[in-house]
Amino acid sequence: MNYSRRIKKVQERLRRKKIDAILITQPQNRRYLSGYSAGDHDIGESSGALLIPAREKPILLTDFRFQLQAQQETKGIDVLLYPKGLHTLLKGLLPDIGITSLAFESHYTLHNVAKTLKSMCKKLSITLHPTSDMVEKMRQIKDKKEIEIIRRSVFLNEKIFRKIYKTIYPGHTEIDVALALEATMRRRGAEGPSFETIVATGARSALPHSVPGTVKILKNKALMIDMGLILDGYCSDMTRTFVVGKASKKYLKIHRLVRKAQLAAIKQIRAGVSAASIDKAARDIIVRGGYGKYFGHALGHGVGMAVHEAPRLGGRNRRLLKAGMIITVEPGIYLPDWGGVRLENMVVVREDSCDVLNQDTTWLDI
Amino acid sequence: MNYSRRIKKVQERLRRKKIDAILITQPQNRRYLSGYSAGDHDIGESSGALLIPAREKPILLTDFRFQLQAQQETKGIDVLLYPKGLHTLLKGLLPDIGITSLAFESHYTLHNVAKTLKSMCKKLSITLHPTSDMVEKMRQIKDKKEIEIIRRSVFLNEKIFRKIYKTIYPGHTEIDVALALEATMRRRGAEGPSFETIVATGARSALPHSVPGTVKILKNKALMIDMGLILDGYCSDMTRTFVVGKASKKYLKIHRLVRKAQLAAIKQIRAGVSAASIDKAARDIIVRGGYGKYFGHALGHGVGMAVHEAPRLGGRNRRLLKAGMIITVEPGIYLPDWGGVRLENMVVVREDSCDVLNQDTTWLDI
Repeated sequence: MNYSRRIKKVQERLRRKKIDAILITQPQNRRYLSGYSAGDHDIGESSGALLIPAREKPILLTDFRFQLQAQQETKGIDVLLYPKGLHTLLKGLLPDIGITSLAFESHYTLHNVAKTLKSMCKKLSITLHPTSDMVEKMRQIKDKKEIEIIRRSVFLNEKIFRKIYKTIYPGHTEIDVALALEATMRRRGAEGPSFETIVATGARSALPHSVPGTVKILKNKALMIDMGLILDGYCSDMTRTFVVGKASKKYLKIHRLVRKAQLAAIKQIRAGVSAASIDKAARDIIVRGGYGKYFGHALGHGVGMAVHEAPRLGGRNRRLLKAGMIITVEPGIYLPDWGGVRLENMVVVREDSCDVLNQDTTWLDI
Repeated sequence: MNYSRRIKKVQERLRRKKIDAILITQPQNRRYLSGYSAGDHDIGESSGALLIPAREKPILLTDFRFQLQAQQETKGIDVLLYPKGLHTLLKGLLPDIGITSLAFESHYTLHNVAKTLKSMCKKLSITLHPTSDMVEKMRQIKDKKEIEIIRRSVFLNEKIFRKIYKTIYPGHTEIDVALALEATMRRRGAEGPSFETIVATGARSALPHSVPGTVKILKNKALMIDMGLILDGYCSDMTRTFVVGKASKKYLKIHRLVRKAQLAAIKQIRAGVSAASIDKAARDIIVRGGYGKYFGHALGHGVGMAVHEAPRLGGRNRRLLKAGMIITVEPGIYLPDWGGVRLENMVVVREDSCDVLNQDTTWLDI
C-alpha cells in the first residue's frame, strides 16, 4: 500500500485547515495510514495512536506490548513508547515538536478521554479541533489494489461457504455450522471473521441478527447464513438463504421477490446516483410484492477495512455514489414465526455501472 | 440475578446526587442492571440504552432488531424502539417523563455523540452530568451468586484446557490449538471466548500479546496458553505455560520463580491491603531472582462481566482490596528471543485471606 501518499493527503488537509497535527486513534484509520495492524481489545484499551504533524513525518505512539509489531509493520514512521500513558507522553512531545493546534477523532475518542485531552491542551495553549471522518472519507473510495484485495476476500469467503454448504444436513446444529465456517476461515489465512457469523434456521431466520445456537437445523425450512472474513485487512460480507430439503411455494415466492429486488438495485448502481435511490429501487419491488413492512432495514452499506462503513445505502442518504466505492446490496423479507430471506452480494461502483464481486450463485436464481 | 435491587441502588445514588435519571450505554452495565444480554458490534453500533429514572421504573431503548430479545430477557422494564435513532426518541421522551437532569456514561460515550446529546439537552433545558464508574464500582464487589457463576466459568475453562492440552504435540500449529480451544468453548455452552485465545510457542511466548499463527509448536520449548470464556455473562481468564517435551534447566528455574512470585502474592491477598502491595509481593520475588526488568506488566486485574475490569493490581494503585472482589494473579518473565513464562489464576478476596478459584494444577508446581 502507498502509505506515504495517504499520509500526504492527510497532511494537505491539515495545512488547508491550518491545523498543526492530527491524532489518529481509530484502529482501521491507524492501519490505513501506517500499516500498523494491531486492533484495540476495546475502545478503552487502545493499542496506539498515530500522530501526524502537518509538515513532518508521523510518529506511532504505543506501549511496550506492541513495540516489535509497530516497528516491523511500519516504514518511515518513528515508534515512541508511552510507559506512563498516552497523555503523559503527549504533554512533553507536543510542545517539543511545536504543535499549537491539534485535531482528534471525535468519533473514536471517549467523552472522558477528550476531557483529559482538553484540560491538558488548555495548559499547553494548544487549540483542539474535533474531526469526524477525515480518514473515513478517504477510505470510502478504494484504489485498484484495495479492490483486488477485497475481491480476494470475497472469493475466499465464497470458497469457504461452498465447502461447508456441502456438509450441512438437518440435525447438524447452527453453532456447528458457524464454528466450521469460522475455523476454516482462520485455517485458510483469514485474520478472522469480519463479524460474528449468523446461521439461523426456520423461524429464527426472521431475526435479522440471530446468534447461532445449539438448535438443530430444520428440514424443509429456510436456513440463513450471513458470513464474512478479514483478509489482509479487508472485509467481505455475504448472505445466502436456502432450504435444506424441499422449499415450499411460499418460500420460493418470497426468495424470488428478494432476488428480484436485489437485481433491480444492482442495475441502478453507478457513480452519480443517490444512495437513497438505490434503496428505493429494491424497496419498490418488495412493496409492490406486498411485503414492504417486512423489509425493516437499509438496503446495504459500504465495506472496506471495516465491515460496516460509509456510505449507508438507506432511504435517508441523499449523497451520491462515487466510482471506487464498495457496497453491499442485501434486501430481505422477515416474517415473524415463519422465517426470513436475505440475499447479499458486494459490488464496486463504476462510472457507468457496477461490478458484482461475488461469483457464487448458490440458490440465487432458483 | 436480583436486577431490581441493583436498579434500586442506582436510583438511590441518583437521588443522593439530585439527578433525575441516568442513561446506561455500556453493554456490561446494561446487562448487569437489566439482564438484557446483547453486546455492541462496536461502540459506534449500539444495541440499546437503559434509561433509569430516579423514581420510576427503567426503560430499555433499542431498535427493532433487538426488540424480541429485549422483551424476553428483561422483567419489569418497558422496551421502547427508536426507529429514528436514540436521540430522536429521547427528545420526546425526556420532557414527557419530567427529566430535568440526566447523567450519562462518560467512559462509554463518544465525544461526538456527547456533543449531540449536549446540544439536545441544552434546547430542552436539561442539565447533563458525565459520570464515570457508578455501575463499575458496584460490579467490583461480586455477590454469592456471581461468585458461583464465575467459579463455573473458571471450571469449564479448565476442563476445556485439559481436554485440548492432552492432544498437543510438536508439529501441531498455534492456530490449530487456539481454534480447538475456542470451538470447544462454544460447543460446551460458553457464550464465546472472553478474549482472543493466546497460544505462543518458543520465543513467541516472549510477546505478552502474541496472536496465534500458522507456526508449528516446537519441541522442548515453552508453550504459553492464555485463555478464558464467557459463561452466563461472566468471564474466566487463565494462563498456563509448559514445555512440550523436556524442559531445560533455565526454563525450570524461571518457571519456578514465576510460581513462587504468584504464591507470595496470593498469600498476601485479603480485604484491606492495597493493590500495589500485592503487586510488590510478587515483583520483589522476581526482582530478587534477577529478572525484575523482564516483568513488564501489572500483576493482575479484576474479572467479572468484563475480562478486564477494576481493580488493577499494579504498583501505582494504592486502593485497598475489598471482600468479594475477583482478581487475577499473573506474574510473568519474558526474555526476548528466548520466550516467556506467565502463570495466571483467579482468586476471590475474602476478609482474612483469599480463595483460589482454579483447581487445575497442570505444570504449576514442577
